[in-house]
Amino acid sequence: MPVQAGSVSRRAMLSGVATLVAAPGILRAGAAEGRADPLPSWNEGGPKQAILDFVGRVTTSGGHDFVPPPERVAVFDNDGTLWAEQPVYFQVAFALDRVKALAPAHPEWKDTQPFKGVIENDPKAVAAAGEKGLLQIVAATHAGMTTAEFDAVVKEWLRTARHPRFGRPYDSLVYQPMLELLGFLRASGFKTFIVSGGGVEFMRTFAERTYGIPPEQVVGSSGVTKFEIRPDGQPVLVKEAKVEFVDDGAGKPSGINRFIGRRPILAFGNSDGDQQMLEWTAAGAGPRFLGLVHHTDGEREYAYDRQSHVGQLDKALDEAAERGWVVVDVARDWKSVFSAEPRTNR
Amino acid sequence: MPVQAGSVSRRAMLSGVATLVAAPGILRAGAAEGRADPLPSWNEGGPKQAILDFVGRVTTSGGHDFVPPPERVAVFDNDGTLWAEQPVYFQVAFALDRVKALAPAHPEWKDTQPFKGVIENDPKAVAAAGEKGLLQIVAATHAGMTTAEFDAVVKEWLRTARHPRFGRPYDSLVYQPMLELLGFLRASGFKTFIVSGGGVEFMRTFAERTYGIPPEQVVGSSGVTKFEIRPDGQPVLVKEAKVEFVDDGAGKPSGINRFIGRRPILAFGNSDGDQQMLEWTAAGAGPRFLGLVHHTDGEREYAYDRQSHVGQLDKALDEAAERGWVVVDVARDWKSVFSAEPRTNR
Repeated sequence: MPVQAGSVSRRAMLSGVATLVAAPGILRAGAAEGRADPLPSWNEGGPKQAILDFVGRVTTSGGHDFVPPPERVAVFDNDGTLWAEQPVYFQVAFALDRVKALAPAHPEWKDTQPFKGVIENDPKAVAAAGEKGLLQIVAATHAGMTTAEFDAVVKEWLRTARHPRFGRPYDSLVYQPMLELLGFLRASGFKTFIVSGGGVEFMRTFAERTYGIPPEQVVGSSGVTKFEIRPDGQPVLVKEAKVEFVDDGAGKPSGINRFIGRRPILAFGNSDGDQQMLEWTAAGAGPRFLGLVHHTDGEREYAYDRQSHVGQLDKALDEAAERGWVVVDVARDWKSVFSAEPRTNR
Repeated sequence: MPVQAGSVSRRAMLSGVATLVAAPGILRAGAAEGRADPLPSWNEGGPKQAILDFVGRVTTSGGHDFVPPPERVAVFDNDGTLWAEQPVYFQVAFALDRVKALAPAHPEWKDTQPFKGVIENDPKAVAAAGEKGLLQIVAATHAGMTTAEFDAVVKEWLRTARHPRFGRPYDSLVYQPMLELLGFLRASGFKTFIVSGGGVEFMRTFAERTYGIPPEQVVGSSGVTKFEIRPDGQPVLVKEAKVEFVDDGAGKPSGINRFIGRRPILAFGNSDGDQQMLEWTAAGAGPRFLGLVHHTDGEREYAYDRQSHVGQLDKALDEAAERGWVVVDVARDWKSVFSAEPRTNR
């Protein structure tokens, strides 16, 4: 049974300030030299202390829980964990906007579901088209073009589209406390990865500039690409309308195995789609940190969990309680939610 | 048309010592401070000079060809490029040895091809079983176990098996000049990746200790894995007898796109299976290095190219000549071939 960060968290809360003063390694050094708080947007309390304690333990040379830097692998879900996911996954918002943008070139869509429903802003008609309809939308908006063309289309959408409630670019709706956590982990010798159900090419258009996560550390769902030499001699990869891999639920441990090839020691998610990733991470020997973001703040963001159609958090919340995983209560634990300024450099 | 290292190579050969003295960046600094040759197992000449020149150009701050470190992605084929591949791919040697090791538990194999042929050392019978037979061997030796079990089996094989000609562990038959090149590139801010047709889990058992390439920078072929919770509550990934992705030929650009998500600036291969990887690498803007190892040394290693059944180098050799890619002639360009001592720490 690996040491669970949750139990550490409870201990840390009990011992309070004493724990902070006695925190080993990087944290003690930081305190002694008056270094700034690495997590200023986190309120003091269990989750913040559990993070500081865990990172302190695994980075303390000679300590019982020391983990060599190459094994400091941290994985993060994206939708609902690093950026928002309501009222619909942002990649779905992209696909719907894209159908509308392409509609003039496809007059037949006016009379064909699910496209008709998208163009007429009729979510019921779109939902009625089911999974087959969704795949048609994905095929029409994500396939039949080169990877370079897709990259340009997504970047243009991120530049121009605005979130319906916040009026900000989608890639500015990233969680400031999680940005601080990513930076703190990297400063502590961790390699940070995204492991998300989102499309890998979609996420890579902004992951590096937004999260500081380079493309080779983004794991996601993918479609088949086909290598072709164009008549002008230029090689291209064409995106096909064929799903290759779905990096969600039980697919996440497979994705971690195939792309990363090493079991993470820290995993953060926010939904039942992350449950198996946390289980897989927890099952390794040695210290482990398992975290869930619980969206409890309808004022600053959204409040949803067990009944939500997007980012449902139900079974994983029960397992977190049973196993002592760290549950971040957004309303309680986060001083700020979104980064004050859009992070996007355009 | 990107600048091709081949043309640089020819220029470098013409200008000789003058080029070395005038080499920019890290190399000039190295020479001035009397640093050791980063490539001591390479004979002086075109390929060595082309490498030194390319690395010097892309690492010279403010220079026309400067490439920021995050974009310094270098990809290497494995079989025949980083370690040997004759008389059969080492992973095939593993599979055949494994059939023999498992044979006592499978008495039916004595009368069933392709297993009968393997047990009786009858390569013609194995070959006659064709692709279907090979898939049966792969299924019997690579599937039906957990990823952890497979890892242990391969490591035990590497520890005990010996190459039929050299009598050394397979993972000691790595090319010393390429180890030096990998180290030199990393010291120059490159991230080094394997992009190979070999199985990704097979290669990861030795890539880190042998090449210094961590598991998350190994791209290869893969089978489907399935997440399961065992009755004792332990989650496992079970390897299934289903091919997921073949990272060879035109699959290599797709593999690079999916796993790395950024176009390399340096690619090294040795066979027609690497041709599309080199084409894809070459097609980016800015400086590029494209290299092929040409196995010309039957005394120290093996001599093979256009007619070989393993590691055939035919079309890619023609394209290299047309486009000025760097062709390493093992007999001429490598002072030593294999590392003097087995690299494996056991």
